Amino acid sequence: MKISEMAQKVKEASIKLSAIDGDTKNKALLSIAALLADKKEEVIRANEIDLENARKESLPAPLMKRLTFNEAKIDDVIEGINSLAELEEPVGKTLLSTELDDGLELYKVTCPIGVIGIIFESRPDALVQISTLCLKSGNGVLLKGGSEARETNRALAEIIIEATVKAGIPGDWIKLLETRADVNEMLKMDEYIDLLIPRGSNEFVRNIMDNSRIPVMGHADGICHCYVDEAADIASAVSIVNDSKTQYVAVCNALETLLVHEGVAPVFLPELKSKLDKKNVELLGCPRTCAIIPAAPADEKDWATEYLDYKLSIKLVGGIDEAIDHINSYGSGHTDSIITADRQKAACFMALVDSGNVLWNCSTRFSDGFRYGFGAEVGISTGKLHARGPVGLEGLLSYKYLLIGNGHIVEDYSSKKKTFKHRSLNKRFNI
Amino acid sequence: MKISEMAQKVKEASIKLSAIDGDTKNKALLSIAALLADKKEEVIRANEIDLENARKESLPAPLMKRLTFNEAKIDDVIEGINSLAELEEPVGKTLLSTELDDGLELYKVTCPIGVIGIIFESRPDALVQISTLCLKSGNGVLLKGGSEARETNRALAEIIIEATVKAGIPGDWIKLLETRADVNEMLKMDEYIDLLIPRGSNEFVRNIMDNSRIPVMGHADGICHCYVDEAADIASAVSIVNDSKTQYVAVCNALETLLVHEGVAPVFLPELKSKLDKKNVELLGCPRTCAIIPAAPADEKDWATEYLDYKLSIKLVGGIDEAIDHINSYGSGHTDSIITADRQKAACFMALVDSGNVLWNCSTRFSDGFRYGFGAEVGISTGKLHARGPVGLEGLLSYKYLLIGNGHIVEDYSSKKKTFKHRSLNKRFNI
Repeated sequence: MKISEMAQKVKEASIKLSAIDGDTKNKALLSIAALLADKKEEVIRANEIDLENARKESLPAPLMKRLTFNEAKIDDVIEGINSLAELEEPVGKTLLSTELDDGLELYKVTCPIGVIGIIFESRPDALVQISTLCLKSGNGVLLKGGSEARETNRALAEIIIEATVKAGIPGDWIKLLETRADVNEMLKMDEYIDLLIPRGSNEFVRNIMDNSRIPVMGHADGICHCYVDEAADIASAVSIVNDSKTQYVAVCNALETLLVHEGVAPVFLPELKSKLDKKNVELLGCPRTCAIIPAAPADEKDWATEYLDYKLSIKLVGGIDEAIDHINSYGSGHTDSIITADRQKAACFMALVDSGNVLWNCSTRFSDGFRYGFGAEVGISTGKLHARGPVGLEGLLSYKYLLIGNGHIVEDYSSKKKTFKHRSLNKRFNI
Repeated sequence: MKISEMAQKVKEASIKLSAIDGDTKNKALLSIAALLADKKEEVIRANEIDLENARKESLPAPLMKRLTFNEAKIDDVIEGINSLAELEEPVGKTLLSTELDDGLELYKVTCPIGVIGIIFESRPDALVQISTLCLKSGNGVLLKGGSEARETNRALAEIIIEATVKAGIPGDWIKLLETRADVNEMLKMDEYIDLLIPRGSNEFVRNIMDNSRIPVMGHADGICHCYVDEAADIASAVSIVNDSKTQYVAVCNALETLLVHEGVAPVFLPELKSKLDKKNVELLGCPRTCAIIPAAPADEKDWATEYLDYKLSIKLVGGIDEAIDHINSYGSGHTDSIITADRQKAACFMALVDSGNVLWNCSTRFSDGFRYGFGAEVGISTGKLHARGPVGLEGLLSYKYLLIGNGHIVEDYSSKKKTFKHRSLNKRFNI
């Protein structure tokens, strides 16, 4: 089937899906979970073929680990689907209700976005998580997973389609793409696709943005900062910076640049260094940092680099204003923190740092949908439009205005025969 | 000054503006209103120069009317600013508060988007409305108005800057661009500008979208439909269709295509025609329409055309499903209505029509920010991301996550030493 045909079919199904009630969608979710449990062996066999091929192609160990979809991972995914089914119905929520005039009622009601195109990495669990999030929020979805996981993805997609059709969902709501050429075609489908969510490298996301008219929800680098203020508790600062940098280095919310108040640097930096040395963190510093602790000289490029590694750039600053300026100039709007006992400085930092997540006295590694309690995460957005920061189900929703009248015409209001009342109704949309 | 320098200065000022309290912003708004009243004569003189030049260049009468900025219009604008100052402070609203664990509190708080680039038509009142909306929502703004209004725009921008600086707002929050070359430069400033709002023709908006990496909030055509169902009250349907089509033809919420249930067409269409004949509305119909009333034959292109004129295309349909399919295929997602006494059909139509505004038994002309009671309108969005339909102040806002801890590190949760509580706090962010 041509990609344009596939996209059109998903679009048509998405219209029907948008009007399907929460109970049916939840039944479909539970049906997916049950069929996954039934067909566990089948999925594992498909995954073994992918793993075998990956071994032949000498896939690096971390990627092999991500590709592996064993019984434990399947059980995790099933548990995830069951909790998703328990979440409140996100579609059809009344956000606003106003009586414009007698018998003329306006409602603002949540609805699905429509069709989402998702391009994701090699983890097969991502396919299940993303597609069930789309189902819960009533969106059709076109999925392209990592080619290493082809057999596993096919097996999973078949199970999802079979289970949802059985539950009364139009089968065309989900389609799997398989090649890069398919993705290139998908980028042109602005007639049918409402939103693209690419997951992958920064460069990859930019490339998608530059090659499609479809809006993209993605994230740029996570160049995260921590500013250790003069009024910081030293022991706490060492612990937080260590966690922010080393708890897991290969993720977007890991610390990349440390800003230290010059007044506290002579005490703080040596203590920090002895902590980070245990994890072999490579330090790059501004000249004043290098005068206090041994560190390689940092250059201009370091302030704008996401290392994703055991590597940290350090800069001394004269105070909070310089720290904020540095963050707003070099940061990527992802996650930035301040460590201070001074409440007023914290308030100032939180107001002026222009990032999706601004933290006080805690690790940057907390900025994450699961830790924030959103249950499920679509991704993290560094854009400021639509959704910002960790994006849960609500990032897959739009809304529409529904207006109910009784023969009302605008001419009556233009001619001043009638006037608007604009009285808040506080009422759920229900006809 | 180079556009890049201007954009950078606005960006810097916008950071400061984002942290300025509501009282100061409201004082600045009232200060603009007062200075506008003081300098009325000056503004009118500047406008007379623009009008004189426009006369020399034989600007068409409707454009001359839009360009005119007389005492009455200035008074309207002043009244608008005064009501804007009375609206609730939109920045700093807590949208969510969760205790992640003891002493670890997460808040989701509204904040300005940052810097907005606005390109608008010849009406000088638009300059004041848009810039005051940006001020209220804490956004910096780069403005490019119609070149016919150059003198008026300059006078207004000077007044706005003078008044806001007096009230303690950084003067660089607003800058006026003057040439098309300036606009082309602005489109490249994705480093400093967060959102573009172009107001103008469909073609113009598309052109902006295709030539900038900055997200665009604009609208495509308003190809609005009305479906007159079998169960419609005929007199009411005639009145609503007449209002939808003729109350004001040159606007995006005017009716362009009428869909009529075949069962009611023989009675309804002749009555409608005699009503529309009074306004000389040109009718184009499908073959079955033309068999009932005199109308020119409509072709495929007519179903996808926004006439913005005394012109209406009419199609007979077999029922509500065909009507919904037609609207979702040919419509532009702006405003579509159903006229019926059948509650269930209305519910089905409102659920399945994928448009920003879906109306039952009232005129399409109601879909408008002022009529909806939003006080002020930034524009109407036919996109589904961020803001949809008539966009008020909230379309100029984003949010950030603010997390307050007390030395919390993620390792404690990864190692299961601690577990998350995720307890809703129902508390305003305030430190």
